[in-house]
Amino acid sequence: MPRFKCIVSYDGSGFSGYQVQPNKRTVQCELERVLTDIHKGKKTRVTASGRTDAGVHAVGQVIHFDTDYQIPGEKWPVVLNQKLPNEIVVRHAAQVPETFHARFSVTGKEYRYVIDRGEVPTPFRRHYAVHHPLTLDLDLIREAAQQLIGEHDFTSFSSARTEVLDRVRTIERFDIIERGSEWIFIVKGNGFLYNMVRIMVGTLLDVGYGKFKPSDIRALLEAKDRTLAGKTAPAHGLYLWEVEYSDARRK
Amino acid sequence: MPRFKCIVSYDGSGFSGYQVQPNKRTVQCELERVLTDIHKGKKTRVTASGRTDAGVHAVGQVIHFDTDYQIPGEKWPVVLNQKLPNEIVVRHAAQVPETFHARFSVTGKEYRYVIDRGEVPTPFRRHYAVHHPLTLDLDLIREAAQQLIGEHDFTSFSSARTEVLDRVRTIERFDIIERGSEWIFIVKGNGFLYNMVRIMVGTLLDVGYGKFKPSDIRALLEAKDRTLAGKTAPAHGLYLWEVEYSDARRK
Repeated sequence: MPRFKCIVSYDGSGFSGYQVQPNKRTVQCELERVLTDIHKGKKTRVTASGRTDAGVHAVGQVIHFDTDYQIPGEKWPVVLNQKLPNEIVVRHAAQVPETFHARFSVTGKEYRYVIDRGEVPTPFRRHYAVHHPLTLDLDLIREAAQQLIGEHDFTSFSSARTEVLDRVRTIERFDIIERGSEWIFIVKGNGFLYNMVRIMVGTLLDVGYGKFKPSDIRALLEAKDRTLAGKTAPAHGLYLWEVEYSDARRK
Repeated sequence: MPRFKCIVSYDGSGFSGYQVQPNKRTVQCELERVLTDIHKGKKTRVTASGRTDAGVHAVGQVIHFDTDYQIPGEKWPVVLNQKLPNEIVVRHAAQVPETFHARFSVTGKEYRYVIDRGEVPTPFRRHYAVHHPLTLDLDLIREAAQQLIGEHDFTSFSSARTEVLDRVRTIERFDIIERGSEWIFIVKGNGFLYNMVRIMVGTLLDVGYGKFKPSDIRALLEAKDRTLAGKTAPAHGLYLWEVEYSDARRK
């Protein structure tokens, strides 16, 4: 059956995360409900690059599904967006080889985390950025972020509930940019453990507040102990920004 | 009694507008409920620069209230924001002379209207910008906007339900700026009639789509007939951005 790849953007505020859960409103549920509806009741499954937690947003989540329907790739966004709730938008779709897999073919991901640095919170951003009005040392945060770059065992920076055994990941970029009254943490790597971005951001904010020093990061990594790193930053500041697939793996 | 002026920002999405209405959730209701609560049940009234409709946002709404409470101006935002829903944020407060009046002392207002020009709508902006993905001629829109500048009778650009008899207003600025994938209409004047900004924007969008020419604006103004101008643009793209008070009137 022909396989289609879609880039999907969603506002995570009203969802219990991406993945299907009984009696919960999730992004995957909505996508499968609409696709099944389009296929006249024939259950159509969707596979994503990975799940996102309740409240987490996506700008560039990637999914794939298989269909016999003779709809050209570029028409799928129109067909799907018509039936999807307006919190979910299919930005792009294209037919891909059947060897493409939204999860297994991933070669890298970029996440972004947004904090609102205004003296008072911006009401329009209350679901999209986390308010941090106090003094934060951006230079120290940047210095600490650089310590996370490279190949490390990220056990200290993943949820204690992580079931994956191999916790070695490579981070290739960790920048913090200022845009208006917001700071945007940009992190790119070959893979991320459960809660890893939120724990890294929580720890970097602790560095900014003076609770840790940039030089503590190395020791935190080496300790492989979740209890030593900072708190998990709230979900609503986090965005799955982009998912990368190498041409080699796509074939 | 000492009078305090506050600059208030709010997300209009969840409110039936600014003004108190029986059995409706409004911004004024919330402000008065919180102030009355702070004053241990003594009903405390709030006066705003003007009302905003359901779904309309404010970045710089101005209100005043009178109180005997010995709280310095700069502490009021903290005290109020603690009790207000997070859709309403008091950005600034200061004591003002008792001759200051949030509505009668106004000398000018700035409104902004935001449209999302992305090919597909941005889900995070669905309550904050109106999606217009099709071709719009920005040069023609700008040319038409310039025709609205100056002193005119804006009857054609105000709701048929307008009860005010003097419909002459002066617009001093009407610019359209591009920011990322959004266009922001910026309009500043000495006063605005009911629905005036939304009807002007609706008409300018009609110019952009080719339904009107920039040179039609003058005839529309002269006709003094609401039925000839464009549709009232949706509420959720509109922001009361700033309210101006001259120093002379403030005293």
